Amino acid sequence: MLELLSVVMVGIGLGKLVVEVINVGNELLDGRTLNSNLQWMGGRFSELGYVIGRAVIIRDDLREIASAVREALRRKPRWLVISGGLGPTHDDMTLEGVAKALGRRMKVNTEALEMVVEHYEKRMAEKVIERIELTRERIKMAILPEGAKPLRNRIGTAPGVLLKSNSTKIVCLPGVPREMQDIFNNELIPMLIKESKGGKIVMKHVEVEGVLESSMAPLLVEVMQVFKGLYVKSNPKGVEDGKSIVSVDFMADERKGGEKLVNEAVNYFNERLKELKRREEV
Amino acid sequence: MLELLSVVMVGIGLGKLVVEVINVGNELLDGRTLNSNLQWMGGRFSELGYVIGRAVIIRDDLREIASAVREALRRKPRWLVISGGLGPTHDDMTLEGVAKALGRRMKVNTEALEMVVEHYEKRMAEKVIERIELTRERIKMAILPEGAKPLRNRIGTAPGVLLKSNSTKIVCLPGVPREMQDIFNNELIPMLIKESKGGKIVMKHVEVEGVLESSMAPLLVEVMQVFKGLYVKSNPKGVEDGKSIVSVDFMADERKGGEKLVNEAVNYFNERLKELKRREEV
Repeated sequence: MLELLSVVMVGIGLGKLVVEVINVGNELLDGRTLNSNLQWMGGRFSELGYVIGRAVIIRDDLREIASAVREALRRKPRWLVISGGLGPTHDDMTLEGVAKALGRRMKVNTEALEMVVEHYEKRMAEKVIERIELTRERIKMAILPEGAKPLRNRIGTAPGVLLKSNSTKIVCLPGVPREMQDIFNNELIPMLIKESKGGKIVMKHVEVEGVLESSMAPLLVEVMQVFKGLYVKSNPKGVEDGKSIVSVDFMADERKGGEKLVNEAVNYFNERLKELKRREEV
Repeated sequence: MLELLSVVMVGIGLGKLVVEVINVGNELLDGRTLNSNLQWMGGRFSELGYVIGRAVIIRDDLREIASAVREALRRKPRWLVISGGLGPTHDDMTLEGVAKALGRRMKVNTEALEMVVEHYEKRMAEKVIERIELTRERIKMAILPEGAKPLRNRIGTAPGVLLKSNSTKIVCLPGVPREMQDIFNNELIPMLIKESKGGKIVMKHVEVEGVLESSMAPLLVEVMQVFKGLYVKSNPKGVEDGKSIVSVDFMADERKGGEKLVNEAVNYFNERLKELKRREEV
């Protein structure tokens, strides 16, 4: 058992920069909403050479937000991305929770307030809304923890927020996917590219038909032993026409000859798989 | 600010039994796989009167699994449901991680081994596979933490696992959705129904067109103040034909007159909303 388990540790890190994610919202935990934000962020981070080490989904609860933020910071990720809970209503309390975790005060951020006002003025100019008052719920979206920098939201009202805490950069984004993606693409990605300088993960995907995952398991370990720096992961996809389907992903760091490593490993795997099939069919 | 935030605390618990979820798998964090298991479980738990308090998504890493389990147990949920990492390959290490967290030894569970053998025999009888050897990778699926009870998997090979640790019941399920759902429906739900004895949450959903979420925010707080025990949550859905769409959910515990509470609150909300619209259109 231990022998099997120790092998995988080699490939886990892949030298990538670690990110943690916190998604805030009751609707993510009670079946109402599928958490597509996590998958979307995971894809973007992978492309940029980052790895999400952990994601925590929590309810709209001030104490929960503060404690999840504190716990994440203790693990010292490079980035902590928090989505959801930036809006104007009573249950939008992400920034209050972050401030609590960091021991900072909340105050009106004039740059953020300008963004909020500009957004409403633009919508009034477009005749989307007739008139608007700067109520406390609207001002709320510009009340940020001290030391925070607002990130422009081109789709909705609530600005994103950037903060630093020791070696971790904290980014708070809206939960609405279009708004989250807009701020992520326009504000966060430029910072990530500047920081990571490449380090993309090369991945190849092989779909294997007619070999059980349990038959394949020793071969996956063998491939990782032969090709150092490679990480292999299998996912059973079920049974079709009486044949089991298993998808296998081969991953390696581009900067460490990842493309060559992955190609050679896939060839090796396919050859050895043929032998395995012949043996199983006897 | 504080006034706004304190109001919501009233409605958060709703007297439900708290569950925590851990989803294990690199593919859930790097963009490959959408975590539909969490949404599915969230729906089932809500229907049965439970609430998922927190979900943690982690990588296939032994230390990560053990520490996430330890942290969850410290919060004393009624149930801890873990999905993923029960299969035969090198990166399936959920049970090893649970054993590590609980300080228990891993050993072959004869009941689980019978389930694994029966599964392969059935597939041989169905001529899906020709012959099968009981390799260590296959036996691995029957090596459970001491004191565990296997839960039959009618779809795939790896049995689910039930364990107790103080006041928390731990259930480990496969990550493949069909297998997870099979064990959840057939093995877990009967235990949940027996334990919870009702306590369903009644929910009504209202879609509001043409009123900004920020305009609506004070009304949501007002509704929760008027209808004690009610929880209201708004989710902005974006803009259509120049009109903002906001979805609002009204929730209350069935045992505490939830249905009446929700109906009355929705009527009250709709009336007050009309006034709000008239004021905004002036």
